[in-house]
This record gives sequence, C-alpha cells and structure tokens, in this order.
Amino acid sequence: MRILISLVSSSTSTGLHLLSVSRRLRTKISPFSTLIGLKPPPAMATSEDSLRRSLAEKQSSIESQGNTVRALKAANAEKATVDEAIEKLNALKLDKSVMEKQLQAAVNGNGPDGSINKEAFRQAVVNTLERRLFYIPSFKIYRGVAGLYDYGPPGCAVKSNVLSFWRQHFVLEENMLEVDCPCVTPEAVLKASGHVDKFTDLMVKDEKTGTCYRADHLLKDFCNEKIQKDLSISAEKAAELKHVLAMLDDLSAEELGAKIKEYGITAPDTKNPLSDPYPFNLMFQTSIGPSGLSPGYMRPETAQGIFVNFKDLYYYNGNKLPFAAAQIGQAFRNEISPRQGLLRVREFTLAEIEHFVDPEYKSHPKYSEVADLEFLMFPREQQISAQSAKKIQLGEAVSKGIVNNETLGYFIGRVYLFLTRLGIDKDRLRFRQHLANEMAHYAADCWDAEIESSYGWIECVGIADRSAYDLHAHTEKSGVPLVAHEKFSEPKEVEKLVIAPVKKELGLAFKGNQKKVVEALEAMNEKEALDMKASLETKGVVEFYVCTLGENVSIKKNMVSISKEKKKEHQRTFTPSVIEPSFGIGRIIYCLYEHSFYMRPSKAGDEQLNVFRFPPLVAPIKCTVFPLVQNQQYENVAKIISKSLTAAGISHKIDITGTSIGKRYARTDELGVPFAITVDSISSVTIRERDSKDQIRVDVEEAAPVMKSVTDGHRTWADVWASFPHHSSGSAED
Amino acid sequence: MRILISLVSSSTSTGLHLLSVSRRLRTKISPFSTLIGLKPPPAMATSEDSLRRSLAEKQSSIESQGNTVRALKAANAEKATVDEAIEKLNALKLDKSVMEKQLQAAVNGNGPDGSINKEAFRQAVVNTLERRLFYIPSFKIYRGVAGLYDYGPPGCAVKSNVLSFWRQHFVLEENMLEVDCPCVTPEAVLKASGHVDKFTDLMVKDEKTGTCYRADHLLKDFCNEKIQKDLSISAEKAAELKHVLAMLDDLSAEELGAKIKEYGITAPDTKNPLSDPYPFNLMFQTSIGPSGLSPGYMRPETAQGIFVNFKDLYYYNGNKLPFAAAQIGQAFRNEISPRQGLLRVREFTLAEIEHFVDPEYKSHPKYSEVADLEFLMFPREQQISAQSAKKIQLGEAVSKGIVNNETLGYFIGRVYLFLTRLGIDKDRLRFRQHLANEMAHYAADCWDAEIESSYGWIECVGIADRSAYDLHAHTEKSGVPLVAHEKFSEPKEVEKLVIAPVKKELGLAFKGNQKKVVEALEAMNEKEALDMKASLETKGVVEFYVCTLGENVSIKKNMVSISKEKKKEHQRTFTPSVIEPSFGIGRIIYCLYEHSFYMRPSKAGDEQLNVFRFPPLVAPIKCTVFPLVQNQQYENVAKIISKSLTAAGISHKIDITGTSIGKRYARTDELGVPFAITVDSISSVTIRERDSKDQIRVDVEEAAPVMKSVTDGHRTWADVWASFPHHSSGSAED
Repeated sequence: MRILISLVSSSTSTGLHLLSVSRRLRTKISPFSTLIGLKPPPAMATSEDSLRRSLAEKQSSIESQGNTVRALKAANAEKATVDEAIEKLNALKLDKSVMEKQLQAAVNGNGPDGSINKEAFRQAVVNTLERRLFYIPSFKIYRGVAGLYDYGPPGCAVKSNVLSFWRQHFVLEENMLEVDCPCVTPEAVLKASGHVDKFTDLMVKDEKTGTCYRADHLLKDFCNEKIQKDLSISAEKAAELKHVLAMLDDLSAEELGAKIKEYGITAPDTKNPLSDPYPFNLMFQTSIGPSGLSPGYMRPETAQGIFVNFKDLYYYNGNKLPFAAAQIGQAFRNEISPRQGLLRVREFTLAEIEHFVDPEYKSHPKYSEVADLEFLMFPREQQISAQSAKKIQLGEAVSKGIVNNETLGYFIGRVYLFLTRLGIDKDRLRFRQHLANEMAHYAADCWDAEIESSYGWIECVGIADRSAYDLHAHTEKSGVPLVAHEKFSEPKEVEKLVIAPVKKELGLAFKGNQKKVVEALEAMNEKEALDMKASLETKGVVEFYVCTLGENVSIKKNMVSISKEKKKEHQRTFTPSVIEPSFGIGRIIYCLYEHSFYMRPSKAGDEQLNVFRFPPLVAPIKCTVFPLVQNQQYENVAKIISKSLTAAGISHKIDITGTSIGKRYARTDELGVPFAITVDSISSVTIRERDSKDQIRVDVEEAAPVMKSVTDGHRTWADVWASFPHHSSGSAED
Repeated sequence: MRILISLVSSSTSTGLHLLSVSRRLRTKISPFSTLIGLKPPPAMATSEDSLRRSLAEKQSSIESQGNTVRALKAANAEKATVDEAIEKLNALKLDKSVMEKQLQAAVNGNGPDGSINKEAFRQAVVNTLERRLFYIPSFKIYRGVAGLYDYGPPGCAVKSNVLSFWRQHFVLEENMLEVDCPCVTPEAVLKASGHVDKFTDLMVKDEKTGTCYRADHLLKDFCNEKIQKDLSISAEKAAELKHVLAMLDDLSAEELGAKIKEYGITAPDTKNPLSDPYPFNLMFQTSIGPSGLSPGYMRPETAQGIFVNFKDLYYYNGNKLPFAAAQIGQAFRNEISPRQGLLRVREFTLAEIEHFVDPEYKSHPKYSEVADLEFLMFPREQQISAQSAKKIQLGEAVSKGIVNNETLGYFIGRVYLFLTRLGIDKDRLRFRQHLANEMAHYAADCWDAEIESSYGWIECVGIADRSAYDLHAHTEKSGVPLVAHEKFSEPKEVEKLVIAPVKKELGLAFKGNQKKVVEALEAMNEKEALDMKASLETKGVVEFYVCTLGENVSIKKNMVSISKEKKKEHQRTFTPSVIEPSFGIGRIIYCLYEHSFYMRPSKAGDEQLNVFRFPPLVAPIKCTVFPLVQNQQYENVAKIISKSLTAAGISHKIDITGTSIGKRYARTDELGVPFAITVDSISSVTIRERDSKDQIRVDVEEAAPVMKSVTDGHRTWADVWASFPHHSSGSAED
C-alpha cells in the first residue's frame, strides 16, 4: 500500500490561518491510491493485512520445516526423506518470496512500479525545470540555503502571468481593494493574531551535535520506512504504525516524545539520542530600529495587514458591506528542515483575499454565475465514511448545506475557474472540506483546493469562513473597534439586559476584591443574571463564584440591580465575518508545471522531447521568431516582426542560430512557448502551434495581430486555423 | 538662503550600490535655490554674507547709540538732544529689523514665503494622499512603526501600474532576464558584497535614556537651525556651519563626535549628554533555521541575487554578452530614525537591472534611438564650478565623453523616457553625475536621476557603471568563477609572463615561511618580475620585500625562474562589467504624486478642489461610471458598460450614489481618475476628461472600446475629441 502525502493545515485549531500556516505533513486519504488512517477501505487494506498474516504464518511454517530438516539430518534419516523435506522447505521459501513481492506491491500502491513511475515523472519535470532555469536553488554558489529558491527567467515570467491573471480574475472582477503592506511586522500585531504564541512546530535535537529535526517528521519517516520496507512486522504492528501516522498532527509534545522513545528513534545521521520535543516558533525574528527593544517578525501571512486596516478600508468603501480587500506579497516561515522542493519553502508568495460580510447576510449577488459549475468535491461526510471525492454541482452543495453559505460557494467556484484557466487539470483538482477537528472552533466552514501532484494531493488554496475571529482579536488587543454598522430604516425597539453593580456596597463588603467581583457580575450571561435576580428577590442573598478570586462570595440584594430595559436603537453594530481565500502561488505554479508537462518522441523517434503545454495566458514567452535559414533578408523580416510584437506587448524571443528548425522547436517546446513564427519568405511566414504542431501561413504584417489575438484569448487556435491557409511542415521538424 | 536637501548616496565609496544603499542626507547644490557647500555661488551667498555682516555692524551701531542715549540721560542732557539720539536709535533698530527680515528671506530661499509655500503644498498633497488611502501608516491601530507604510487601494494600483510599465519598458523591450530571489539572504553573500562590514550609519545614544539618534542628523539639524533661525551669528560662523553641512558625509566617527562635543549638542528630547558616535549596521538581522548558527539578513538591495546567478544566466543567454537581468522586489533597511515620510522608509520596492557587458565593447545597438533626446543634465564639471544643470543632448554628452560610454548613455535615455511617460515633469528632472569623491574607486561613471520635490532634489534612480567589482567579489568569496569568454575566430599568439618559484630551493632557504615567499613572488607585476630577472642575471641575488612577513628576504638565482613565453590562445576569459540602473519605486511614486497634484476652484468658486493629473497609464482607476440621476434604466446601462469595461481589463468604479454630479466628479478627480462616463440616456453617454473637463458623446456600445483605446495609449484624448460630437456640460459640474 503506497502512502500519498497531502499537505494539510493542522494549525487551524490554534486559531491561525489556513494555507498560510498549514505546516505539518499529514498522511491523508487519497481517492485513487489506497487509504491509510483510521478507517482504511476494506478491499486493499485487507489484502495487505491478510498478506502480512499469511507471511507471518509462512515464516513460522518455514521455521518449523527447517527444524524438521535439521532433525532428520541429525537422525541420519534416509536421503529421499531428507530431500523431500528440503524440497518442501524450498517450496515454502518460494511461496514466502512471492508473498513478499505481493506485500511490497500492496505497500507501494497500484502495482509494484506505481510509485517508481511517479518518482521518475517528477524527476523528469524537475530536471527540465532546473535545466531551463524555471527555478534555481538560491545562493547556489555559496552552497545554497534549504527551502530558498529563485525563480529564473521563465519561472519569473510564469509567476508574473499568474499574478496578473489573479488580479484580473479576482481584484478587477470584484472591485476588490488591493493593499500592499510591509513584511516587517511589530510583535503586538502577531501577538494579537496568535502567531507569537502558537505558530510553532515541535523540534528535537541531536543530544551530541545539536542538529535539529522536526519531531513529527522523524516519527513519520520511521513509521513509513517500517511499513514499506520491513515485511516481517505483524499485521497488528503495521496497523499501529498507520494509526500513529494518522494521528501525527494531534500528538502533544509529550506523546510525540513518548513514541520516539518507545520506537527507539535516534538522530538520522549520527544515531545519537534525541532530546525531548519542544516547540520552535516558525517566524523569522528580527529587531526594528537600533534600540534592540522592539522585536519584530517577517510576516508569516499577508492577512494581518488587511485586518489591522479594516476601519480605513470600510470607510474607503463608503461604510458599506460586503467588500473584499486583497493583497499579494511575500510571507516567511523559518521551517526546521524544509523538504519537498518547491512545495515547502521558507519564503513564498501569498495572494490573499479577505471578504468582509454581514454575518446575517452571506448571500452573494454573483453567486448564480457559478452555481452551475460541477467539479470534484470531497465533503466531510465522504471523508469520514471512507468514500472518495465526487463530482457535485456547486449550487447543489450550497442548497444542501454541504457548503455553509453562498459567499463561500461563490469563492469556491471562482477558485475553480481560476485554477482550471491557468491550466490545472480539472480531474486532478478537488475541493476538500475540513474535518471538524481540523477547523478552529470559531470557523463556520473551510474548504481547501487540493491539486494532485507526484507528492500526492497538495493544499494550494484555502477558502475559509473565519467568522469574526480576526477582527475581534485585533479589536481586543488594540482597543480600536473594528466593527460595522447597519443603519435601520426606522428605529427598532430592543429589550436589553442591564446589570448595575452597586459599587459602594460591594466596596464595603469586599474591599480590595471589589473590582474582581464587579467584573464577574458584569460578565454574567442573560440566563445567569436572570437566575440571580430571581434568587435575590426570593432569598435576598446568593452565593456567587468569582473565578478570578477562585472562591464563592455572598451577593446581597442591595449589591446589584438587574433589570431588562427597552431601548430604541437606530443602528446595529456588529463585527463582520470574514471569508478568506488564500492562495499559495508557488504551490499552484509547481502543480501547474507537473500538469503541463509531457514527453513525445522526436520526429526521428530517437529521443523523447519535453513539452510544457502552458496555455498562452501562462506561457513565459508567447512566441518565438525564427528565420528558417541564416539569411540577411529573413533576419530583417524577423526583426520587423519582433518590433511589432514588442509594440503589442507580446513577450517573445528571436532565435537566429543556425540550428535545425526541429531543434529550435524542441528548445521552445521545453519552455512551453505556444507559438513559433518561422520566416521562410519575405512576404509571408508560418505560425506553428506547439501541441498539435499544426502550421498556418500568414502575411508578415498579420503575424503580430494574429499573435495578439490568440495570446489575449480573443481568438483560439481553432479560430485561427479556420481562417488561414494551412502549411504542411514537410521536413521542418527534422 | 534656504537649504535644499537632496538625498544622495554616500556609500558608493564603501563599494556598495547606489540607490539601494544611499543612506545619508547630504546638503546639495540646487540649481534654482541658492547654493551651499564648498563653493557658494557669488551673488546670493554674498547677499546673505553681506547681510550678516551689515547686521552685525548695525547691532554694534545700536549698542553704541544705546550707550550714547544712556550717557546723555545720565548727563541730564537737553530733551531735544536726547530725543534726537533716541530717534536715531529707533531708526537703527528699524533698519536692523528690515535687515533681519531680508536675511531671513535670504536664508529661506526665494522670498520670505518660498519655503512656507513648499511646506503648505506638501501638506495639501499628503493630506489628500492619506485621506484617500493612497498610503496608510502601517499598523496604525497599534500606533504604527516609524518608516513603515502601507499602500492603500489607489496607491497599490498606482504602484502596480508603474511596475507593469517598468516591465514593458525595460524587461520586454530589451528582452531582459527577469529573476525573483528571496529576501532572506545568508551572511556569506552579504559579507562578500561588503554589506555586513560597511552598510552602517553612525549612531549616538542618549546617555541616560538610551534613545538612539543618527549622529549626522543631529549635527545637520543643529547647523540648519543655527543658520536659519539665529540671525545674530557672524558671517564667519555661518560659513563654518555651511562647511560642516557640506562635509557631513565625509566625517569619520571621531570627527562627528568632536563636532557634537564642540557645539554642545545634546539629546533633542531630554537635553541629556550623548555617547560617542559608533557604527550601526542597517540590515535587519535574523537567523535561518532553528539552530541559531546561521545568521541571515533581509536583503538591503535586490542586485546580489542577480550577481550570484551570473553563471546560470550567462548560460541561459547562450553564453553571449551583452545581456541584462532584472529584478523587482522588496528591500529592507533598518533606519536608525526614519524621517521624510515616504522617501526614507525601512522597507521598499526596488527594481534593478544589471546589464552585463564586455568591458572592451560598451557600445549599444539601440543607442541611436535615444541619442537625440535632450534634457537637464548636471555633469561633474557644472557642479564643481557652481553652475546649474543644463539641457544637453544625450548624444553630445556621450560623444564628448561627459557620459562614459554608449550603454550608460542608452540607459540614461531610457530612464528619462520611463520617468517622463509616467508623468514626471521633465523640467523638474535632472541627471546628476557623481563627483569623484562620491564614486567608488572601481566605478567608471555614475549618474543619478534626481526629481525635484518639496523636499528638494531626490535621488530616484541610480545609473552606474560598476565595472567588474561585484562579480569579482563573489568570484573571490565563493570560489566559483563568474566570468565570460570571447572565442577568437582564429587563435591568437600572446606573450605571457611566467613566474615559476622553485619550491625545493625556497623550502630549504625559508622553511616555514616558504609559502609566503612563493605567494609574494607569484604576486609580482610584470615590471617587478622583469626587474628581478635582470638583477638575478647580473648579480645572482636580490633583496625582496615580502609584505606578509614584513621583512626582506634574499632571493637567489636558483630559487625562481622568470620568463616570457608565447602561447596560442583560442579565447579570452574576462569578468564582465556591469551597468546598473536601480529604481527606488516608492520614491518615484511619491515624486509623481507631487508632480501630478494641483488645485482648482470649484464651479461655484467657494472651495479649492484637489486633482491628480495622472496619465491614464498610471491612474489607479481608469474611469468612473455614473448614472446622471438615480434611475433604474440608467443604472442598468451603467452596469452593462461596467461589464464590458471589466472584460476589456479596464479598472473602473460605478458610483450610483445620489450625490450631485459635480461632487462625484470632484471625488474622482481627487483620485486622479482620467475619465468619467455619465449615463444620461439609454442609448448614448458622455465621457468627460479630467483636466480639460471637456466632454464627448458616444453610443453606449462604444464607451468601453473608446476607453480601451485611450487608456492603452492607442489614441489620445485629442484624437477622440476630434472624432466624436462634443457635449456641453451645462450645469453638470454643479
């Protein structure tokens, strides 16, 4: 059984944000691999399970048969008898070896080379990406820094295209208020948001060398290694290890430490003993100004910059709800030991939206535009009953209450459109709802857009209804009310509970404790207060527990007045709810690379050529311009076309090397360039489409306008193919 | 005489980059204010000078006349005589007061209210910017952090437009290789670049409270205050203070400390004594990973990320020169005490280009496209001879050798086009050449694009020919050769000096010091080596100074062989030169705000309305759509137009409030929205241009295409004005 890894936030339960703080690897249910975790699906797990049992039985048969052989030999039994016993032993050993292979295959997933293919595929993608400088390990000449990567020229262009489209698709389309806040953030802000206290991972140290490791990673590696490589463990042991993997995120420091001790896990490189696990804060800390007295951090997410500006943004929006603010920017996470290449890095670009809405009106005016979309959804129900993701119509999911509200549904739909238009394969994209234990207590509902890659299902966008939590937290810590108002068309009469402690009497009775008693009285909820009122009216005195004192005090009738009063209110004041779609841009781009990559044989059939099938929207370079042969006239035509492409704002490249046209095509296919203009005359040129390799012929002056229309998305290649004469490539690709 | 402040780099002489590390305020020559510094221009400085002298004379006349009056009174002189003496005294006092006003005016600049107007203008701009959320002091609800600002919605849109245009104008136009590197940078990189050791400002501390101040700021403030407010100081004292201001950047810690002591400068708030000045590193420090053993910094500039990738980028470019790499990103500077609002901040966006070129071929193929441009240049010569900037044709500046080379000239021209197309006033933009003492020893030539604002001339773009310095530094520290090759079409015969120390003999003679002697021998330049060769041949032995040993040693003939050999070489290996245009995006945007801002009376004439005359390219919102009156039909038309504007990618805003159309225009003028579409019928609408307030009438379907063409720059407002019927606004603006 192969284990697919999915990156899923575990920090929501600490009150932190979704994507931006998702930080632990959690072994997850995968719909087309086998399942692991609390409820493995019957078929395959049973197969693994029974194989382990059979293997254990076979092993004991082998041992007993071995004893038999030895006994016969010791007793100088007849050769025929001994040979027969040996033959039986060998047959048992053969059975065992077949069984081991079956078990290995079951552990590795769909067939014995399923995972090897995924690894090989990833290697092919990553090799191409590195060779063509889509990305570069940062500071390579100084031996680099784990978890830091540069975007090289084509990667940088892809990123810039993705961000432009994000702005067009979200900010412009919804008239969002985009802001741009600094990365350096003072402690007070991140104290209020919870990051200073809770944004941690558990770490262990090699007790001799001091090398640091993530405690859960060591435990996970141990369990996976054991399950996948040690075929001799019992079915019970295997089940236990899988249970540990499933529970990994919920283990406390003590529990993790106990497991590490129990399994005898040591430092991977030195085999030295490990320290107990302890929390390590994942924020990069620094100091603002020269005094050393103002601690600051590099922001772990961009969202806080929006929350602290709520008041100004609400005013900017004419004091009206709903509205959304958005921010694109760098975020930082000082990972203990980054792994998984571009998916888990120490610095990354986030694009976050905070849509503020009246908690009582979560409908969305443009909801109908997405309600008919149908795509893979993976609701809570399906996950806990061990089913797989299924196609659901978004409108149905909202009307059935699977998705909490229209606005959340609207954003799920918009995220689906965003990702698929970028080129993410819709069959390898699912929206997974958070399980109850993954969500913070205040959250109304959370969905992750997960994209399947060779690493498993990767959380790339988190879409959460975080209720009023964040604005509440900053209101409380800053003392500035981050609230909205709804003006009533006519004043409303409301009944309000009024608790009025009589401070003089309380002072006489409780002296220095008076303040704590007053606070406790004022903090009573409606039921408690009315109960007290009733008791005071009947008995004249009640025992009242003051938690800040840790004891009961006697409250007499003259010490507090409790009443319900009617008031006229002209407006309602409330803390808005926030619905937060949060995009991990680097992860989306990495998944896009995997979904766009394919290989095809060269025309001669002697090698495999790499291609990225980026849509024009995303492609780092929109077209190349080649003179068919080295020739001054053709080069001049190429330069004229290049100039008009630049004027039209189309990124392109001229290639005037004498290399064969086939090689030049192959070079650009590997960069995902969708179109190639080949100059083979001075009046007209051919345009070749990357994936079909089809070619049309257009006049020189038409080349740039045609490119503009197909890269802008105003025309498709099919439109163009229908309008221009076709060109048969002949031997062009050789 | 008013003192204009210009922000000019002083760190170049430490080997650091231009704009990105320019960090000290230097009082600078200003062409249309009076001059300060080493060589004040005769006229006005003389006027201030002579005023101070006359004032001092007048003061002593007053004192002596006062004595006369007192003497007369004491002697009970005749009333008429006393009165006459008093009258003379009063006349002298009146003269003095007139003179003081003249002096104050001279000190403040052109006329007594010149500087007050600048302050008032700045205040009007800044008020509008803050009120309309172009920017927001960051973390305001937590009382903010000095030197950190958010871009609010319109500011963020302006920034995004400026960056898009930068990409189009530089990256796309020149086919530059854009990269995107992390902000977190390991120490080794910034050690090699010189930032760890030299990126410092001198700081003093309040000896009692520990509050930190920039030493040069305190001295500068003291001198300015004295010159501007204390009219009683002598002309000699005033000249001394101005000399200090002019030398501010060149003062060592000891010299600064001595001046602070001499002038009795104390802590501004407490008047406590100050510590001696000491260097404070301006980088935000942090720690990478959990061990605490890998120091890192938030990058102070983006350039280093490009240099360390030179090898890969050169390969990506087909191992050909020249090519340019570019990067847009955040940079960080932990200022001691940030001032000057948006101009001196702790985190900012840089856009940097590193154009790598063969030091022997610094011509540029597109140079002719900019050679005819003519604009304000301020060459070294003009500065030291106290002239002002003057219009020079770029081609002339290059051909006369004022600008070092064509490539540098090409970028100066491109920067000029970039800034003026954004909306920077060409008459308040100048290119100032660095003085010899401002430049690093290795730099070939440096020019700053300076923009005049209410703070004086602000360095916004630095354009430097940094020769091979940066690639050399990283080659040396990383051990990875960052070099380029020129293949010869046919092999060249070259004569090379070969110094071959005979280690065996040297070992016998110098034992443990052998290595140092060998290194010293190998380090000889050609002349030294040939001199030694000649001496050894004639005398057999020479005295040779080994600096690492600090002594002379005797070198004998058998210890070293020196010869000239002929070799065939197939290629030349060299370190490329780098020409670096570096853009401070936030500074450019702030200057653009000032250059775009104006006020005009409302139609009723009862108030002044604010307008930003942003070109469509920069405007945060391209147009607004208003129904003339609240009316469902008009609102529907407005929504249809809005939808087609969104589809065309044009950022816009609908305003369906019932406010008067005049108020709505005023609101959008203040955001710099260039066009307003007013729906006053269901078939056609009017389009109003912001600055002329002219209106045309177009059909509903034409509104979006017309907007598209004028905001794309395919048509000007004049073109559109010529093609459509004009609309007379009537009472629309009321």
